[in-house]
Amino acid sequence: MTSPDTDETAPDRKSAGFKDRTRLAAAREQLLSAATPHERTERLSLIPADGRALAETVTSPTAVPGYERAAMDGWAVRARDTFGSSDRSPGLLRVADAEPQTAPETAVGPDSAVRVHTGSELPEGADAVVMIEHADKVGDDLEVFDAVTEGENVAPVGEDVSEDQQLFEPGHRLRPSDLGLLKSVGVDRVTAYERPTVGVIPTGEELVQDDPGPGEVIETNGLTVSQLVERWGGVPTYRNVVTDDEAALRAAIQRDLTKDIVVTTGGSSVGERDLIPEVVDELGEVLVHGVALKPGHPVALGIVEETPVVMLPGYPVAAIINAVQFLRPLVKYLGHFPDDAPPTTEAVLSRKIPSEPGVRTFARVKLDDVAEADETDPDRATATPTRASGSGVLSSVALADGWVAVPEEREGFDEGETVAVEHWEWSA
Amino acid sequence: MTSPDTDETAPDRKSAGFKDRTRLAAAREQLLSAATPHERTERLSLIPADGRALAETVTSPTAVPGYERAAMDGWAVRARDTFGSSDRSPGLLRVADAEPQTAPETAVGPDSAVRVHTGSELPEGADAVVMIEHADKVGDDLEVFDAVTEGENVAPVGEDVSEDQQLFEPGHRLRPSDLGLLKSVGVDRVTAYERPTVGVIPTGEELVQDDPGPGEVIETNGLTVSQLVERWGGVPTYRNVVTDDEAALRAAIQRDLTKDIVVTTGGSSVGERDLIPEVVDELGEVLVHGVALKPGHPVALGIVEETPVVMLPGYPVAAIINAVQFLRPLVKYLGHFPDDAPPTTEAVLSRKIPSEPGVRTFARVKLDDVAEADETDPDRATATPTRASGSGVLSSVALADGWVAVPEEREGFDEGETVAVEHWEWSA
Repeated sequence: MTSPDTDETAPDRKSAGFKDRTRLAAAREQLLSAATPHERTERLSLIPADGRALAETVTSPTAVPGYERAAMDGWAVRARDTFGSSDRSPGLLRVADAEPQTAPETAVGPDSAVRVHTGSELPEGADAVVMIEHADKVGDDLEVFDAVTEGENVAPVGEDVSEDQQLFEPGHRLRPSDLGLLKSVGVDRVTAYERPTVGVIPTGEELVQDDPGPGEVIETNGLTVSQLVERWGGVPTYRNVVTDDEAALRAAIQRDLTKDIVVTTGGSSVGERDLIPEVVDELGEVLVHGVALKPGHPVALGIVEETPVVMLPGYPVAAIINAVQFLRPLVKYLGHFPDDAPPTTEAVLSRKIPSEPGVRTFARVKLDDVAEADETDPDRATATPTRASGSGVLSSVALADGWVAVPEEREGFDEGETVAVEHWEWSA
Repeated sequence: MTSPDTDETAPDRKSAGFKDRTRLAAAREQLLSAATPHERTERLSLIPADGRALAETVTSPTAVPGYERAAMDGWAVRARDTFGSSDRSPGLLRVADAEPQTAPETAVGPDSAVRVHTGSELPEGADAVVMIEHADKVGDDLEVFDAVTEGENVAPVGEDVSEDQQLFEPGHRLRPSDLGLLKSVGVDRVTAYERPTVGVIPTGEELVQDDPGPGEVIETNGLTVSQLVERWGGVPTYRNVVTDDEAALRAAIQRDLTKDIVVTTGGSSVGERDLIPEVVDELGEVLVHGVALKPGHPVALGIVEETPVVMLPGYPVAAIINAVQFLRPLVKYLGHFPDDAPPTTEAVLSRKIPSEPGVRTFARVKLDDVAEADETDPDRATATPTRASGSGVLSSVALADGWVAVPEEREGFDEGETVAVEHWEWSA
């Protein structure tokens, strides 16, 4: 159902029905401390592991490189045999092998040189490489124009990774370069936490999937929240609409207690059709009902048989804001993902954002087209608050580039202030 | 093959072999202006369209809501019948229907009221809603304590979206809330550009897929680049390793000319084993060879039969840096995606970053654990440059949180300066 979110339409009555409203940070803390990360893991090969949270400490079973190698194209030598060599007084060595190979078979003896290329295994007996530009091959002789010291132009064993080096800890979220690093040390499977599962239950007798008649509304919150869960690393199950009936709501919530998280949309306020907090209170416990944020204060958070239940308001803007504030950190926490904040863009406000002290306020903004050109240009983007008035206006979110969160301590932001615009939908 | 990237190991010789090096922005511009976005589109339903670039202008076929609706729980009335009502002198109306319905059937006549809830269709004859808190039902009468004006507590037709309103333009990348908006207006399929296809060809005679012997190295660049392409919205085909042989390289590149982009790793420098620029030059044109960036200057960019070819250096760090600088914008451009810069985090440097003027320098950094706590705390994160010395050290990228790009105009950044740390692997 579409919960009345009176935030914006009737500011003088905005607390109606809510005895008190919990501050956002405290509400989130209550939710997270009542939840327990699952411990289900699975073995995955590297490509399917991209983006997943590690469930093990990974140490390197081997050193990389596993052998000394040439860091330059040139001649492998004993450094001491080049001492004193210079342009004016070239040293003279014997060419033992002039053909560069990946793993040269010819050893380097006193006053001899073996041709190597970058990455070649250093031949036995050698301890340095003379760069190709610093030597001239003349018949079977090699004129050396520059002395090298021991180890010069040689990449040591374990330069990249040493044996038994700890690479990643549990909870690290794997990225493409991490996969490369794992492969480079010979690790081709990892143990990762399973992605947390989320049952998404849209509720409301007025909701239909298409062709709305009078008084009917197309269901959108469940779709949007499901795709957000997907982006945040969870596995959503997007359920059919449940009507405003206690027994039906109870059954729907109970069915999804096998999930790591249950999310409902609609019916979370204190009106007569707002049945969900009551149902959750019967089945388990409502931890928080009503949060000091705007728009979207009529959110409720609860727990049933150890499964957290996030009860989102039915107004689309309110649903999305609350999903980012509560569901996102919950998915991250239960899935052992790092709880990174959403990425932000710094921008200058083109118009003031008003807010009420004590209430975390989310103002949707459009960013102007930041000149592509050159990232050396430090010009800030400009953020313009959208003029949307209602928390029911989905287009005001979908057509915005992000939002600015005004902290409880402030009374809005002034025109010209630099603010951080949060991109709540990015996948990070 | 592992191209010698002498950037860091021999600073005095770093331009060896390259007549001149193109500036990064100019090189990228040359690449992009030689490329042509494909025009292949497909029809998709909403969930598969998440993250895809629209290939059409979407306008709303309908207004949302399609009917006037109550914005509050209360009583639908004719506003004029409430004029003069107040706490001290309540107005008196007749209750025509006390049961709130989604689509009330009872019309509102003079001096009558029909119970509605938030979202109910406004009954015929009504033009305003008295909030539930502002009225008392006494038998069949309704005492009204507050006058309402025409349209008060009524959401007009098209409040969210008006009929024929333009919602999205071609090239818009769909996000979860966009899917909700599309669904709300009854659009359940869209035309999107196909994801651009990328052939990823790792090259180098020393490369193996596992169990490296002396002089051998496990292939990682192709894997990493493929997964980066995936994150940027492309469809990678991760090919088998091709050895350093002109005919084999030619065949591999020609096979992938059916792709939108060809990427090679290794063999892009000017050494005797660096065959790829030559092969591309025979088949088509090398646009750029050698870019003023560090680490990773031995990159080459070309075009063969209208297919752009990005020739990445073989050193892992150099390959990744160049992939972000050239392949990422190319995937975005050819796939019609917005060319958003990678997200950044502002952080304070704990140590200086040196750089050479005229060269775009990428310094890998670790970010300290930013205190989760409260995002109202404006404390900046601290960025510490990693002490990695070589562009071959993959662990220096995989174990970093991001990098700082030093513009050509600067000689490094000082300790204590605020810098933007780029998260090159995030999916945005």
